[in-house]
Amino acid sequence: MAELDLIRAIEGALRPAGGRVVRPPGDDAAVVRARPFAVTSIDTVVDGVHFELATHSAADVGWKALATALSDLAAMGAEPGEAYVALVLPRDFGDGLELVEGMEALARPAGVTIAGGDVVTGPALSVTVAVTGWADAEEQLVGRDGARPGDLVGVTGELGGSEAGRLLLARGDARLDDARVRRHLRPEPRLRAGRALAAAGASAMIDLSDGLATDARHLAERSGARLRVRLADVPVAAGVDAVSDDPAAFAAAGGDDYELLVTVPPRAREAAQRAAPLTWLGTVEAGAGLVVEGPEGQPVRGLRGYEHP
Amino acid sequence: MAELDLIRAIEGALRPAGGRVVRPPGDDAAVVRARPFAVTSIDTVVDGVHFELATHSAADVGWKALATALSDLAAMGAEPGEAYVALVLPRDFGDGLELVEGMEALARPAGVTIAGGDVVTGPALSVTVAVTGWADAEEQLVGRDGARPGDLVGVTGELGGSEAGRLLLARGDARLDDARVRRHLRPEPRLRAGRALAAAGASAMIDLSDGLATDARHLAERSGARLRVRLADVPVAAGVDAVSDDPAAFAAAGGDDYELLVTVPPRAREAAQRAAPLTWLGTVEAGAGLVVEGPEGQPVRGLRGYEHP
Repeated sequence: MAELDLIRAIEGALRPAGGRVVRPPGDDAAVVRARPFAVTSIDTVVDGVHFELATHSAADVGWKALATALSDLAAMGAEPGEAYVALVLPRDFGDGLELVEGMEALARPAGVTIAGGDVVTGPALSVTVAVTGWADAEEQLVGRDGARPGDLVGVTGELGGSEAGRLLLARGDARLDDARVRRHLRPEPRLRAGRALAAAGASAMIDLSDGLATDARHLAERSGARLRVRLADVPVAAGVDAVSDDPAAFAAAGGDDYELLVTVPPRAREAAQRAAPLTWLGTVEAGAGLVVEGPEGQPVRGLRGYEHP
Repeated sequence: MAELDLIRAIEGALRPAGGRVVRPPGDDAAVVRARPFAVTSIDTVVDGVHFELATHSAADVGWKALATALSDLAAMGAEPGEAYVALVLPRDFGDGLELVEGMEALARPAGVTIAGGDVVTGPALSVTVAVTGWADAEEQLVGRDGARPGDLVGVTGELGGSEAGRLLLARGDARLDDARVRRHLRPEPRLRAGRALAAAGASAMIDLSDGLATDARHLAERSGARLRVRLADVPVAAGVDAVSDDPAAFAAAGGDDYELLVTVPPRAREAAQRAAPLTWLGTVEAGAGLVVEGPEGQPVRGLRGYEHP
């Protein structure tokens, strides 16, 4: 299928443009009615690096590529708006439509319009998604850099499920109705929780793409503070104990859960708990880096999350 | 170099964020002060498809990837704002810094801030650039769909130079100070001309990435009209006659010039000429598609521009 035909077919698979989109795909660029602050992130996933086509359907890849990008908007507390999608398709891959439909299955309920794209040929499947979210005031948004000594550290949801699912898929031992497998193939960006936590007064947020052990370090570094996290309080996803002898450490190191790690000043603790179900698992203190405490308070060393090559 | 280190190194190569950028790279997403209309395009270039690393330096690739995306903003008449860059780097490629510096060499004079990015590993070099431009009113922007019977067809600059440069590079017969080669390696998006032509009352615009013969068809199709173009009036770049026996046809078919094809109502002809140096080469009439007229008015068939696979 020639590029132009494919682009038209993909346009056909998408909804008519929503209220914000003034000029839909098909022109040189998409035109969107803006709000005062644009929040934009771009992410690429590549076959063999961020996912395996051996274990992911094309629709899973589309979903995951968009989820990865939207998760960054969740971590800012932004309201999601538009996605722009660039596909590099190998010649033997097929037409990309199933992939775009998988993306649309996540976009639609999230209120996201896929407003533009590009489709080219290349040696390996890769999907780049640029997402733009919106805010009416700068104070509505939360960065990685606002954690202050005395703040509490919380996390949404449960961790380790995606990594457990990845292991099961790699072993060929996976059922698609397994929650761990589903978490790996179709992660859910925490958009609503992110906005609610921002409104509740969160001081810093980051999404857990590389794993708690890595992403907590990023947040600590950007904030110029130390995060102290109690391993015993890490919320472990159901079924992680079936794939690991040390489920808490596994959950703290595993990536791709796309939950939100959040820091909250003590005065905002109750508002944050009302905003989203949270597990409190640590505190912010003066210093640098991440300290993970074992059950007797001893530091646990050597925990590392994903480092995607 | 680990991904995080590379991202930091690239951040170091970029300017401090400009006045519009509220949160620079390094957070989950970039935050930018918006204007009423956001104009966004995303484009990917892949080694071996859109450029050849055998003939392009990493800096050339960075420049070209950004130029390709910015050219879409030029064709809308938008004021360029921010770029978001996703790099897929082969393991043996090096650190990507030279590529980003090549991009920055174009971004800086164009007033574009590289405000975010992603760097991953993959089997072939590919560069995706999402660019956002801005406008204060919808009427400031020009689509592909506004050409009407009676409008004049004009084009900025001269055509065929990039394709001539590509041929010279492929033959190993190129000097880097040759204007044709430079046009191929470092195309200049016509941002100022695009804004000026929009303000002068252009009815439709498209940038010439795939070649006049292809892109004029796109404009005609989107406008629901026919474009009639006189081959004898196609402005041919200097030196095209050295690589082709039929320079006008060569210039009409060659891609990657990134000039603007524009349609203008007769009443706006003089304003358009004041806005940007134009060559008038045709008219819009009722009908569909593109008719290219030879020197005696006969239709010239079989002219096709690029069809990037």
